[in-house]
Amino acid sequence: MAKRNRQVDLMDQARASSTFDPTKLTVMIYDKYYDYLIYPLYLEADQRNSDETVVSRRAAFHRVESSLGLLDSMKMPHIYSGLDREGLYLEGVRRARVITSDMIAHNHSHFQWLNERYQICNSSPFGMNFLMFRRTIELQGTPEQQRHWLPQIDQMSINGAYAQTELGHGTFVRGIETTATFNVETDTFTIHSPTPTSVKYWPGGLGFSCSHALVAARLITQGKDHGVHMFMVQIRSLDDFTPVYGVELGDLGMKIAYNGTCNGYARFRYLAVPRSSLLAGHAQVSREGTYSQTQTQKDTLPISKRVYSTMLDTRRNIVRCVAFGLAQAVTIAARYSTVREQGRLMFADAAEQEERAIVVFQSQHYRLLALIAQSYAILFAAKDFDLKYESLIREQANDIHTGLPFMHALSTGLKAWATTIASTGATDARKMCGGHGFVALSGLPEIEGTVSATVTFEGENYVMWQQLMTYLFKQVKASCAGHGVDVEVKGYMDGVRAYLNSGMAPASTPGCEKGEFLNGRTLLSIYQERSQRLLAAAYSSYTEMCGRCSPAEAWNKCMMSTLSAGQGYVEYIVLKSFQERTYSTSTGDAPLSRVLSQLFSLFALTTIVTPGLSFASGSFLEYGLLTHGQLNVARLHIIELLADLLPNIIALTDAWDFTDSSLCSALGCKDGNIYERLLSWTQQLPANTGSTVEKAWTAPEGMQEFFKASRL
Amino acid sequence: MAKRNRQVDLMDQARASSTFDPTKLTVMIYDKYYDYLIYPLYLEADQRNSDETVVSRRAAFHRVESSLGLLDSMKMPHIYSGLDREGLYLEGVRRARVITSDMIAHNHSHFQWLNERYQICNSSPFGMNFLMFRRTIELQGTPEQQRHWLPQIDQMSINGAYAQTELGHGTFVRGIETTATFNVETDTFTIHSPTPTSVKYWPGGLGFSCSHALVAARLITQGKDHGVHMFMVQIRSLDDFTPVYGVELGDLGMKIAYNGTCNGYARFRYLAVPRSSLLAGHAQVSREGTYSQTQTQKDTLPISKRVYSTMLDTRRNIVRCVAFGLAQAVTIAARYSTVREQGRLMFADAAEQEERAIVVFQSQHYRLLALIAQSYAILFAAKDFDLKYESLIREQANDIHTGLPFMHALSTGLKAWATTIASTGATDARKMCGGHGFVALSGLPEIEGTVSATVTFEGENYVMWQQLMTYLFKQVKASCAGHGVDVEVKGYMDGVRAYLNSGMAPASTPGCEKGEFLNGRTLLSIYQERSQRLLAAAYSSYTEMCGRCSPAEAWNKCMMSTLSAGQGYVEYIVLKSFQERTYSTSTGDAPLSRVLSQLFSLFALTTIVTPGLSFASGSFLEYGLLTHGQLNVARLHIIELLADLLPNIIALTDAWDFTDSSLCSALGCKDGNIYERLLSWTQQLPANTGSTVEKAWTAPEGMQEFFKASRL
Repeated sequence: MAKRNRQVDLMDQARASSTFDPTKLTVMIYDKYYDYLIYPLYLEADQRNSDETVVSRRAAFHRVESSLGLLDSMKMPHIYSGLDREGLYLEGVRRARVITSDMIAHNHSHFQWLNERYQICNSSPFGMNFLMFRRTIELQGTPEQQRHWLPQIDQMSINGAYAQTELGHGTFVRGIETTATFNVETDTFTIHSPTPTSVKYWPGGLGFSCSHALVAARLITQGKDHGVHMFMVQIRSLDDFTPVYGVELGDLGMKIAYNGTCNGYARFRYLAVPRSSLLAGHAQVSREGTYSQTQTQKDTLPISKRVYSTMLDTRRNIVRCVAFGLAQAVTIAARYSTVREQGRLMFADAAEQEERAIVVFQSQHYRLLALIAQSYAILFAAKDFDLKYESLIREQANDIHTGLPFMHALSTGLKAWATTIASTGATDARKMCGGHGFVALSGLPEIEGTVSATVTFEGENYVMWQQLMTYLFKQVKASCAGHGVDVEVKGYMDGVRAYLNSGMAPASTPGCEKGEFLNGRTLLSIYQERSQRLLAAAYSSYTEMCGRCSPAEAWNKCMMSTLSAGQGYVEYIVLKSFQERTYSTSTGDAPLSRVLSQLFSLFALTTIVTPGLSFASGSFLEYGLLTHGQLNVARLHIIELLADLLPNIIALTDAWDFTDSSLCSALGCKDGNIYERLLSWTQQLPANTGSTVEKAWTAPEGMQEFFKASRL
Repeated sequence: MAKRNRQVDLMDQARASSTFDPTKLTVMIYDKYYDYLIYPLYLEADQRNSDETVVSRRAAFHRVESSLGLLDSMKMPHIYSGLDREGLYLEGVRRARVITSDMIAHNHSHFQWLNERYQICNSSPFGMNFLMFRRTIELQGTPEQQRHWLPQIDQMSINGAYAQTELGHGTFVRGIETTATFNVETDTFTIHSPTPTSVKYWPGGLGFSCSHALVAARLITQGKDHGVHMFMVQIRSLDDFTPVYGVELGDLGMKIAYNGTCNGYARFRYLAVPRSSLLAGHAQVSREGTYSQTQTQKDTLPISKRVYSTMLDTRRNIVRCVAFGLAQAVTIAARYSTVREQGRLMFADAAEQEERAIVVFQSQHYRLLALIAQSYAILFAAKDFDLKYESLIREQANDIHTGLPFMHALSTGLKAWATTIASTGATDARKMCGGHGFVALSGLPEIEGTVSATVTFEGENYVMWQQLMTYLFKQVKASCAGHGVDVEVKGYMDGVRAYLNSGMAPASTPGCEKGEFLNGRTLLSIYQERSQRLLAAAYSSYTEMCGRCSPAEAWNKCMMSTLSAGQGYVEYIVLKSFQERTYSTSTGDAPLSRVLSQLFSLFALTTIVTPGLSFASGSFLEYGLLTHGQLNVARLHIIELLADLLPNIIALTDAWDFTDSSLCSALGCKDGNIYERLLSWTQQLPANTGSTVEKAWTAPEGMQEFFKASRL
């Protein structure tokens, strides 16, 4: 039982004020597809219902937190005790071991994509083993290789890294320099890092934690470079875990976050590995050194396209994961703002002199709810994409791959959009907590840092936007030429073509008299028209520029406008997913539906009034789409929505069902007892009970000598 | 001499391509006012010229870096070796000792506001001693107190903290709970922390480093609370540095940055201090316990207003400091982007297959130059404000305080604007460096974190914006009522009133035919009109709302629009400073002037096209101020400016004259030799040569047990 005090009372009141039952929303978040999609191996969706997902997850968290000694929230978490690089890593190993053991022992996958702190699991030293390492063998290994390796992975008899990026090479995979040269005499490949830029750099777990790695290297045989292929390489001895001869391994040191794992480097010096190391599901090298690619009847998709499926799978999971990351940050900010009474309103009169909980200050109130709405927008977009992905996988199992280009393009756009929004939002949530948010004990630095990493990993966002746009440009081109257009964008492209044919005539603004444009259907059509116009304008600039320089130079010159069009497209898709989830899918609960529709409107209107940073920030106003009068109506409606949603701020964040220990925040615990907890955690810091001051005072380079004057 | 390689060659070429001499810009940055203003004690401006400032600074950096062992840039800096909380703090003490000794020995102040890494000096354990601690005694102490304490401060016989904020109280000073109760029997004050929320929390250096603290506490005597006053309290013994009896001291643990100092907490338990502890320049307590305030003939400014002067001084310095912080981040990003050849243009043909330096990708090119322009915009605004501040101080010396309200309001707005821009920009610069920017060795996490702190400290930005706006609203009100308006805003308010009187009629758009609006004068008038309209609209909404609720509630309901008006006002002021520095002040150097005018245009146009996040993001387009056609012209002109400025990216960042060791970045060294340096620093990390792996393998909770299956 939490001790009763002012803050605990305020939190109870805020929780009691909600107009809906947050557990109904919890079941929507962790629905029956949640675990089916992230781990299709164990159970079919129809064998499981959503309530059970929630129950099973809660049980898993309880076991793990109990085992890690984290159930007493007044005890300062060990992770904050000021550990050095080694200590942080060892704590990461301890935690990874507990969650992995729990998954194996209890046959579940709750911690496979998100760990016990809701961080993407590549932040754990064992995380990549079950993700890209495993998935790549599934997709690129032969049946024999799969039979050999997958059970070892699932039982953690080995731990694997996915070693692709190099010191000088990231998102652009074709630039990779590591070589794997076949030697017919010894029937081996020689893995080698020919330059400093070719040193493998960044792979999760590579530094200290992995026995094996899938190494991306240029396959060279009979004097010919066949491009980048994946090789299974043992990098450490399974007897004592020392590196094998021929590879230098190490850690990259401290990072903004992810310090529980050892993102590492690997420098290969003529390391010989057997020919069977090549993942040979789709390409082989014969005993004589002849390179060939498999092309069975049922296997019409080229290897290069097949790799897209892995990346697509990874990216869609990142989209969902960052929704949780943003939700964590905003949960802490919401709870702290609810009980933090500080400051008065400007122009307060004699009757308004008491300090107010800062959630009622309009700027804080606005920022909190805008971010809450964004966290749900990302989640719903991810869920919508997951359903589409499921269909794609079923089609691909029947060797139908026509849906892949659209899905790949959309995954790049969603990844770029969601991670940008989540990262900016997590930073803002941290800033909303003032100085206390800057301190590790608040939990926010770690959450902010973890989310922030996603904007540059698994495809740098500015490259992602461009991949989406090359797809959309190709579709516009096909549409204009009367060629076939992918079914997923056919209707949309008709609208784009209409803009191009009319020379970008002003939009036929939807029925937008005072207030009318505020309904969901009209808002969605505004988003659609705006994005179609941005796409038409970008395409038109590009084709015009192509008359004056090469297509590549034209692309580069027009890039800023092109990127804005990508952003507009994804915002339209996201709003559509949010609308469908809100209006088309019945929640079966009127109070919840009402709150979701308010959140939908808030998300749509805040994105109009405060668009993300882009070269087309004014695009809702350009070409007569919306008038400044309508913008003022939108602003007033936002203020109304804020008032409507105020009683539900705690319920909307409670719904994510975060345990105190997963938030790991002195400011964000569910009971609201922030000040006593923060003070207590601070007092428990080891530096405050050790000899730090004495060392600083007496060290040869210490403080004592400065003060000698006053002692004379 | 740097080893020659591809990256070093690219850097040399980029440096050779500049169209102006960056050292001329260096002298503009570190001009003769630079040191006069930050440390008026030693030398008058006319005794020093700008070249000498640069020379003297360089000499000081060289001495300090030599003493700290930082001159070999191929050696991994100790600070990155994965230190624990204690190690980071002790390294902070070591560095602070060296820079402080150098200032005392060589009688200069180069490291007083910005330390040897260009971090604001409150990030050093001795930093507050010379800043707010000293300044408060200057302003609030009696002449006798000043004679007693100032020499001890200047010689570092003591080290002082400024202990104002509490666990539950920050920017809102009146909420402070610590009490200082006078006891006539013992002629002492009793300093006490009555609640957990009253514990002093956050003051820089308070945890481990300070012998003394100025404690903000409610002065209570003869049963009456006289509000918050400052008390000089010794908190640690000068013999062994243990805390004095009656105070519990400690550190707040790890933070996003600032780990070289010990932001701390202090809990007082009935600590008795002599009556002379009260800083009694303006308020006294007699031996009998009677409270009185000094009001000499020449002292017409009330104490509460006098405090504004300290805050104003601190804030104006923060504005300048964050310009350097942003410039550091963008210097690293610019240098890395110049030598990082990675990826191809989309749609590249056969002749365009080689990888390109990423600076030429339009999105990177745009982001870099937009941030470079912002760093100069902040700097010039700070310099302009410094000159105004100098006049204010001269007036105040003659007891003329009429300029204070405007200057205080402007300082709040500039602080909020500059720190927001710099923090967002430093984060973007870090993201521009991909995964490598996430690693501590890049130097960017520390820079980003240090800059980020400024948005919430020394006045939380959302509170700062409101302070600016209460001032502006009062001026609008006075202007409308025909009362006196401060001279600094008189002409501006005429324009605001005109909008109000005309019912917000559309702007008389300045001569804005194609291209015409691109000249500096017109751009400035566009900014002015836009900000006047935003202010008029915000004021009008507020007064209308006042008819329906209390002024405080009305303020709160209208806050989002009000904040946007503040942002618009500051952007206008900043553009004005930039314009004056560019066009009115001759640099005496045509090539430099040309580059500055391009930067000015780029800053003005990027802020129009991609405005910062605000409730009025579309405000350049609303009410017919600019048409979408003009916006397109602006976008095209930006692309031209990017091409013009490309050859000067390195020169514009070199001009800040950062030493390699102050950047402390494997990616940002001047020679461009990034890959060899990053690899070398990584290999030097202690965790890579120690027993970390062995511990992770053999620990009871380690990895070995997972792998046993494969060894059977």
